[in-house]
Amino acid sequence: MAVLAIDVQGGDFGPSRLFPAVITFFSHNPQHQGHVFGHSADCATFLQNLPSNLRFQGTDQRLPADTGPAHLIRHQYHSSLEKAFQCHQHGQADALVSADHTGLLMALMHRHAVTHPAIERPVLVSWVPTVKRPLVMLDLGASFSATAEQLLGFAAIGQAIVASKSSLKPRLALLNLGVEANKGPQALRLAAAQLSTWPGIDYCGFVEANEVFSGALDVVVTDGFTGNAVIKAAEGTLDLTLNAIREELSVDWLGRLFGLFLGGRLKPRLSSLDPRRHNGALLAGTELTVIKSHGHADSQAFQAALSKAIEAIECQWSACIRRQLDQSL
Amino acid sequence: MAVLAIDVQGGDFGPSRLFPAVITFFSHNPQHQGHVFGHSADCATFLQNLPSNLRFQGTDQRLPADTGPAHLIRHQYHSSLEKAFQCHQHGQADALVSADHTGLLMALMHRHAVTHPAIERPVLVSWVPTVKRPLVMLDLGASFSATAEQLLGFAAIGQAIVASKSSLKPRLALLNLGVEANKGPQALRLAAAQLSTWPGIDYCGFVEANEVFSGALDVVVTDGFTGNAVIKAAEGTLDLTLNAIREELSVDWLGRLFGLFLGGRLKPRLSSLDPRRHNGALLAGTELTVIKSHGHADSQAFQAALSKAIEAIECQWSACIRRQLDQSL
Repeated sequence: MAVLAIDVQGGDFGPSRLFPAVITFFSHNPQHQGHVFGHSADCATFLQNLPSNLRFQGTDQRLPADTGPAHLIRHQYHSSLEKAFQCHQHGQADALVSADHTGLLMALMHRHAVTHPAIERPVLVSWVPTVKRPLVMLDLGASFSATAEQLLGFAAIGQAIVASKSSLKPRLALLNLGVEANKGPQALRLAAAQLSTWPGIDYCGFVEANEVFSGALDVVVTDGFTGNAVIKAAEGTLDLTLNAIREELSVDWLGRLFGLFLGGRLKPRLSSLDPRRHNGALLAGTELTVIKSHGHADSQAFQAALSKAIEAIECQWSACIRRQLDQSL
Repeated sequence: MAVLAIDVQGGDFGPSRLFPAVITFFSHNPQHQGHVFGHSADCATFLQNLPSNLRFQGTDQRLPADTGPAHLIRHQYHSSLEKAFQCHQHGQADALVSADHTGLLMALMHRHAVTHPAIERPVLVSWVPTVKRPLVMLDLGASFSATAEQLLGFAAIGQAIVASKSSLKPRLALLNLGVEANKGPQALRLAAAQLSTWPGIDYCGFVEANEVFSGALDVVVTDGFTGNAVIKAAEGTLDLTLNAIREELSVDWLGRLFGLFLGGRLKPRLSSLDPRRHNGALLAGTELTVIKSHGHADSQAFQAALSKAIEAIECQWSACIRRQLDQSL
């Protein structure tokens, strides 16, 4: 049995979309419990249908519309997000799920948790679709660059996550602009020298971003700026490809006929390749377990984020990561 | 009439693949002329069929197999690449085309040309497929990061290229990890402040990498590390998508039937979305006009690189770029 603290105020749609998703998820998963945090007025309509494993805790305060991370670090509001963090920090929940901005989640992690000294700040871990199963990629957060030490911290986090579910050594690579050992910035080359001596991983050297999707790796380590560029480029390319297929199949009746057939057959497969579908990123590196959902998640996607939180609890990622980070120092 | 200097020794296949491509191209384009540079022994078999607008200049020296850029800057060989550079530098050709490594081309540009002071070293400009026509993206070279001044230099180069072919103001954006003005590293924010005052462009602010493919932009500016990651991620995603379609259509006879239909219909369209198909990147920022082909280019792709060189000459990119860089200082 796991207990989640869920803030339903975040994201592009707030409670109107997220609260029903939470109700559906916990109706189907009666073995787990949830504390739902939201604005009392916004959530009133959903309270009649609460399953017995959900509790709602309302608040009348909202975060001001333009709240930035720097402001939120200095000013405490009785927002639903803040209350969800307090609930998790005090041990009343095993993990927290929110669709709010990474920056705001980072700010509240700063207030409610201690970042492991091996990394400067929490890291955003994401699961990226590949030819085989999704791989772990980090950092996808707001870091612009990463020192060799930080890259090693990212590697330790990725290693801990993969090792928690498999007895095989995680196949881990560093993202670079070439595969040769003498390529790239010094931080990468220093990190590579260290990683090649780590006994717990199968270090695969430098890879370029196309290798991320090949299915030959379990963990890809990079800085947040590059990681974000890779994921967004994948999303853009997938959209471009699907649009081209759609256009090509709409020019005549034969194409439309094939399109009808393909829609049912290819759509599920192709949408499984979309990074946006693999919702639920882990903000790792503190004693808390925080799962970030996309802001525009639909019901299915938000439920995927809730499942990811359950997985994080059951695999004890937070503890495994901290143990691995201790060793990496 | 344009004159090209072409080194056929570079790339994964050398003269066996590149020389026939050159012969085909110049047979179809009798208005242009080419000086072909290659190793005499490797090229002997191709010399009987030379069209009258091609001249071959052989050499008996090769670059040592493991020559790196740093070595090549200090040591001069009578290689075919070196001779092609000399030919272009001395004005006997209007542009140079090679499938050799970016690093080696950079080293020889260093020897044979002067980089404009607005950028620290030559920049690799590439054309990326989008929903509409390909956009100009730079740097895709070996720079690991870029200062605000360098980003402005990149912007000036992109502006010059697009403006040489269109009277509309180029729509130009900076690649970042968010679209908000306060996002990202300082170099990007400083460059953004400058670009918003440039009269010759339609500055579109920050974009994330998915926007590169949307067709709403003419130029995207980024550092070489991120640019490489974006292109390679696009290639990887395209491969992933096509493999998924192929697999999904091979499970039964109905799928294979549709696959036959789709092969003829979709393949040309989808392969036009592949960045690898848009062969021919411009090494910009000196008085030379150097076009770099992919190392694994096939005949069609190498001919695309030759066409790009003709376009560069006819649009006078080198002069336009230097004028624009002068203004950006």
